[in-house]
Amino acid sequence: MRDVAVIGIGMTKWGELWEKSLRDIYVETALMAIEDAGVDHIDSMYIGSMSSGIFVGQEHIASLLADYLGTSPVPSARVETACASGGLALRMGFMEVASGMNDIVLVSGIEKMTDVGGDKATYALGTAADQEYECYHGVTFPGLYALMAVDHMNKYGTTRKQLAEVAVKNHRNGSKNPLAQFPFEVTVDAVLNSVQVADPLRILDCSPITDGAAAAIICPVDMAQKFRDHPVVKILGSGQATDSIALSQRNDISWLESTYRAGKGAYEMAGKKPSDMDLFEVHDCFTIAELCVMEALGMVEKGKSGEAVEKGRTAVNGDIPVNPSGGLKSKGHPVGATGIAQVLEIVKQLRGEAGERQVKDARTGLTQNMGGSGASTVVHIFERD
Amino acid sequence: MRDVAVIGIGMTKWGELWEKSLRDIYVETALMAIEDAGVDHIDSMYIGSMSSGIFVGQEHIASLLADYLGTSPVPSARVETACASGGLALRMGFMEVASGMNDIVLVSGIEKMTDVGGDKATYALGTAADQEYECYHGVTFPGLYALMAVDHMNKYGTTRKQLAEVAVKNHRNGSKNPLAQFPFEVTVDAVLNSVQVADPLRILDCSPITDGAAAAIICPVDMAQKFRDHPVVKILGSGQATDSIALSQRNDISWLESTYRAGKGAYEMAGKKPSDMDLFEVHDCFTIAELCVMEALGMVEKGKSGEAVEKGRTAVNGDIPVNPSGGLKSKGHPVGATGIAQVLEIVKQLRGEAGERQVKDARTGLTQNMGGSGASTVVHIFERD
Repeated sequence: MRDVAVIGIGMTKWGELWEKSLRDIYVETALMAIEDAGVDHIDSMYIGSMSSGIFVGQEHIASLLADYLGTSPVPSARVETACASGGLALRMGFMEVASGMNDIVLVSGIEKMTDVGGDKATYALGTAADQEYECYHGVTFPGLYALMAVDHMNKYGTTRKQLAEVAVKNHRNGSKNPLAQFPFEVTVDAVLNSVQVADPLRILDCSPITDGAAAAIICPVDMAQKFRDHPVVKILGSGQATDSIALSQRNDISWLESTYRAGKGAYEMAGKKPSDMDLFEVHDCFTIAELCVMEALGMVEKGKSGEAVEKGRTAVNGDIPVNPSGGLKSKGHPVGATGIAQVLEIVKQLRGEAGERQVKDARTGLTQNMGGSGASTVVHIFERD
Repeated sequence: MRDVAVIGIGMTKWGELWEKSLRDIYVETALMAIEDAGVDHIDSMYIGSMSSGIFVGQEHIASLLADYLGTSPVPSARVETACASGGLALRMGFMEVASGMNDIVLVSGIEKMTDVGGDKATYALGTAADQEYECYHGVTFPGLYALMAVDHMNKYGTTRKQLAEVAVKNHRNGSKNPLAQFPFEVTVDAVLNSVQVADPLRILDCSPITDGAAAAIICPVDMAQKFRDHPVVKILGSGQATDSIALSQRNDISWLESTYRAGKGAYEMAGKKPSDMDLFEVHDCFTIAELCVMEALGMVEKGKSGEAVEKGRTAVNGDIPVNPSGGLKSKGHPVGATGIAQVLEIVKQLRGEAGERQVKDARTGLTQNMGGSGASTVVHIFERD
């Protein structure tokens, strides 16, 4: 396998982008990545999108967006594993470059979620769960993650305040990220007193509904320095795993087995361990998700994540910085785009371009992107030369 | 890149499978492929599906189907380029095995289309066209392909009877395929007198709406003989290309540029030319599509496809056999599954297991799988040892 590097990144501000179409958002973002990489063409492209079919009534966006980006006739593929579609797009591009099939590949993600009303958005998101055995019976994602939260609280004594601390920390980071949908701070009290969604989760425990895209350019490491003079960011490891689609089928509902296995795969390929990572960008679709992910990735022991967050260990200046970008919570969560936005943050951090939220001396970082209630996970590990 | 072989194939009878769910159909089919390959595990899987979200209200089927197949926690990805999603699944698996990332990969396609009514099925299929600039203005696929047919007739003198001959030939082949949805013969008169859908296309020029799946197992060539004692079928070439999503944006609406380019890519990788192929499985979603594909793949000169069909050259015993399986026309067209069913037919033919529709001494074959009105094409070339 050839070694692969990320040589360009692009993202525009996320939010409720009613004045822009799927095509607009995508082209703007992809051109930024192409410009940042300094390449004059691409050989192939991947687009992660969870449900353009339900959200905007358009499948076949791989060809549509290649057309509007002006890159046709290059091969273009849409890939999907629900909210892990962005991470999957990187993994597919990684394998294409590693295999020798093509050299310069655009990997990207997009979701335009606010063109439908809230009911339909909830329906669309629910298609990432087991529609027949979960949603049909009335449970949607806030409810599923609430079950995980209750279990974690019962088993390990995790507190409601510790959950809130995840949101507070991510909003603090996001307040320094001008591309975030909600770039402002929140307090523990604000989280605890926000409207209840599914006990014990409140609205400020939940990531929002967002329009947005993110893009990156990858190529073989030995070509990476032909273009712009960025530090070379290598992809050292890629892991992917699945778990039962329905939460009820798992032995331990607050343990993310797919994240554990995808992490293990990526660590092994990279020859790294959790303590080698200088920062993590993880899938905090709900505050409880960030806690479960921390344990499954081996950042802390099982049951110890709440405490670690409360002690400030996961802050930008902590010993295990998590979500310096602001995470899904503050930055927003256009589902198919999230996995690539994580890559963007890691690359910015490893290049030393993260401004006020820069993790000091960051050299190695990890992205963890998850679908559904953890039925899919994709993990990647990056290192700067 | 490592050489890759197809070592197992599976498909159950296609049709209106109201008594079976998406999960049932998939598991049955995938298990057949695993059994045919004789493997005791898989390392990874790909599922081509155009729109499980709209057809059955379920995204994230990669994890769902890995779960129901019992293969979790292996990585599982859904890939989509509309009706070319099956071909794309093979291409992704091919790159994964070629790269060295994994060895034994299940590549598959599925669509459950008849759980929704005809109006919604037409809407869902329309999401493969440009929804905003085509469907919104009233045109759907029969209309788009009708425009291509009119253009081909005007430019090259292709006749209505020549179009009918495509359906007659494919139904003749399909009548010998027990897995086909419509395994019976039709006459030229029956086609010409069938109900008009979009002038000049009649209902018997159109592929049907179908429930079905197809699956194959691939692995490195040097592992292929460890399992069952099948002749080794190598994948010699893989090509993929895109074109403008809207038909109106093309210079020549009866020329399939993406098929030409994907074919060129596959021929070059394989070191083969059109005349080296013993048979072709192509995307005859409408009779006119088969004619345009024949020209774009270099089987005949531009404008000469109608004549070639009329003279019987594309029959099973002709000099360029096309769609011995019965094609989409007779076999059915569960959109995401079609590309893998094409692979199944080629493998059966190259193994000499195609029974009454066997192409004599078949050694080399090509699959061409297309999305939309040709905005995506995936081509693969196979050869028996």
